[in-house]
Amino acid sequence: MSDSWIADRMHQIDASGIRKVFDLAATMKDPINLSIGQPHFDTPDPVKKALISAVEGGKNVYSVTQGISPLREALQARVTAELGHADRQTFITSGTSGGLLLALSVLVNPGDEVIVFDPWFVMYKHLVTLAGGTCRVIDTYPDFTIDLNKVRDAITPKTKVILCNSPCNPTGHVATEEEMKGLAELAAEKNICLISDEIYRVFTYEQPFVSPAKWNDQTLVIDGFSKSHSMTGLRLGFAHGPSHLIQQMIKLQQFTFVCAPQPVQWAGLAAMSYDVSHHVADYAKKRLFLINELKNDYDIRGSGGAFYLFIKSPKGTGTEFTKRAIENGLLIIPGNVFSPHDTHFRVSFAAENETLARGVEVLKKLVRE
Amino acid sequence: MSDSWIADRMHQIDASGIRKVFDLAATMKDPINLSIGQPHFDTPDPVKKALISAVEGGKNVYSVTQGISPLREALQARVTAELGHADRQTFITSGTSGGLLLALSVLVNPGDEVIVFDPWFVMYKHLVTLAGGTCRVIDTYPDFTIDLNKVRDAITPKTKVILCNSPCNPTGHVATEEEMKGLAELAAEKNICLISDEIYRVFTYEQPFVSPAKWNDQTLVIDGFSKSHSMTGLRLGFAHGPSHLIQQMIKLQQFTFVCAPQPVQWAGLAAMSYDVSHHVADYAKKRLFLINELKNDYDIRGSGGAFYLFIKSPKGTGTEFTKRAIENGLLIIPGNVFSPHDTHFRVSFAAENETLARGVEVLKKLVRE
Repeated sequence: MSDSWIADRMHQIDASGIRKVFDLAATMKDPINLSIGQPHFDTPDPVKKALISAVEGGKNVYSVTQGISPLREALQARVTAELGHADRQTFITSGTSGGLLLALSVLVNPGDEVIVFDPWFVMYKHLVTLAGGTCRVIDTYPDFTIDLNKVRDAITPKTKVILCNSPCNPTGHVATEEEMKGLAELAAEKNICLISDEIYRVFTYEQPFVSPAKWNDQTLVIDGFSKSHSMTGLRLGFAHGPSHLIQQMIKLQQFTFVCAPQPVQWAGLAAMSYDVSHHVADYAKKRLFLINELKNDYDIRGSGGAFYLFIKSPKGTGTEFTKRAIENGLLIIPGNVFSPHDTHFRVSFAAENETLARGVEVLKKLVRE
Repeated sequence: MSDSWIADRMHQIDASGIRKVFDLAATMKDPINLSIGQPHFDTPDPVKKALISAVEGGKNVYSVTQGISPLREALQARVTAELGHADRQTFITSGTSGGLLLALSVLVNPGDEVIVFDPWFVMYKHLVTLAGGTCRVIDTYPDFTIDLNKVRDAITPKTKVILCNSPCNPTGHVATEEEMKGLAELAAEKNICLISDEIYRVFTYEQPFVSPAKWNDQTLVIDGFSKSHSMTGLRLGFAHGPSHLIQQMIKLQQFTFVCAPQPVQWAGLAAMSYDVSHHVADYAKKRLFLINELKNDYDIRGSGGAFYLFIKSPKGTGTEFTKRAIENGLLIIPGNVFSPHDTHFRVSFAAENETLARGVEVLKKLVRE
């Protein structure tokens, strides 16, 4: 084959950022690993049991495209109870990434613009590229709050989508009622689709999570079980939004993902009645430990949710700081993986307390070097 | 929301064909169902056991993007033993539809052309649309063989991909050595990527399966476990091809499917050592029963593989014939779901013998009406 076979879009999609970190990690012996983007606890037993029971019961064939009725109806009831929108429909996706791919493919024409907030979850820009769109980037440094005036200024006739993510990966920022209400109302005023990625919604530590859908019934919400119930490798998510949009996403799912893995859908039903608040409380303690240990030496903003701290490098770029951390056995992610700025690094506290303590030791040492 | 939110591509993607059939089916009480596109046997026990053991063992987190090493290496060894290509790489996808989406997204620029054979698997044209390409359709009626001259005539400077599927859904046609060698050499001569969808490869009844990759080491092969091991709802496939192309597909997988469901990958490893030849022998008998019962009344071509007969309607269009079949309690799929031609209907023999016998009765009655 020749390189001419490869479509242009693939030249805009670059995997090197995270790969470099993992290539480095592969050379480390017993690293202090604070780079992980998934819960450190195991999938809850009732969830595993439901999955196993579905497999044993022969539920290994295609489900209907929109997902098994018991799970879809249970989620629909929860969504309706929370938001009360008459026209809001729910369906089951193959993880939140599945929901995002369907959403952007259904909404974005070539040349359309999608407003995203910097720093962002690394997948967003690539999925926008896949749909033929371009990202308009709103800088949220240094405190990672959404500046509504910047959003308003970034809107053009080509703006099709605003994509927000609270609690945010990588910053941990949890948007306030004021931020979310403003964004929701602006999207409605401009007739732009607001997509709210709520995958970390159960992980908040200082103020409650708020969905922009509360103020904008046309909001498309992307959610899932991966982070809340440690099911990242099972590929189960869901989406809810205005019925016409959801129907288009289901139509596209039929020809792409087909359906979420069926036995995993039954596991999701069990997950719905498994309370994860003890895990959230555990992460609240881990977060407080890190912040207390580091706050005198490091500039930490955001950090109200998810399980990340996004910390400013005390000297040099984020990449340079990460390199020194790795030389000292500590694996963290440089901020430029999530951003055009190379000023920060991401620390995950989804780890054992002992690992966090060892990480703190290295970070304290590095700042004094 | 307004309909203006929906991207143009979605207006070209129409789900109505199959939906109409299933809507009709929903009104039927205890139908004689010969419409099913998946094996009628259960997932083999050793496969289920491996899946369960992986779930119990905590293998519910992300795997690496390209798939777990044991499965990937086992598949790679099998592929290398069969084809012996130095540069051929294998990775794990989320079903064959996952592999096809990645392949077409990596290869097709907006405006590029993809050559497909009519009748086709219904997903192809929609995935080409998603990638911004257009289909050039090669008519294979009435005997469903590939006419190499037609393919040569259809090639333009914009042709990027030729997409073939043997054994074919819906016709059951199994391409001969001559057809496959010709197609493989033509693709190589014209520097066009040949994609071979081999999901039904274990199901052949008259002549052995041949892959075009035998004569063209740049062929991209899409394969999976769904049909051979009755794992349709578990979403596990694999792809192999030239390393540069495979690397691009893995890069895109990182931002779309992330990884195939991890416990299912371990189930796939068990599937590799589970021999399905008794199921194939069973389907051979079912096929022979149908052909013997119907050959005097119906025009049946193709039918050498997969688990479908694609039969010419003895009177009226395929849709009209299907409607009458459904009125008589027999659920089959009209050919225009797979084709611009509305002349045929698809009968699946992935069903119990008793169901097949009842189906034959209705078909015999209908031809005499």
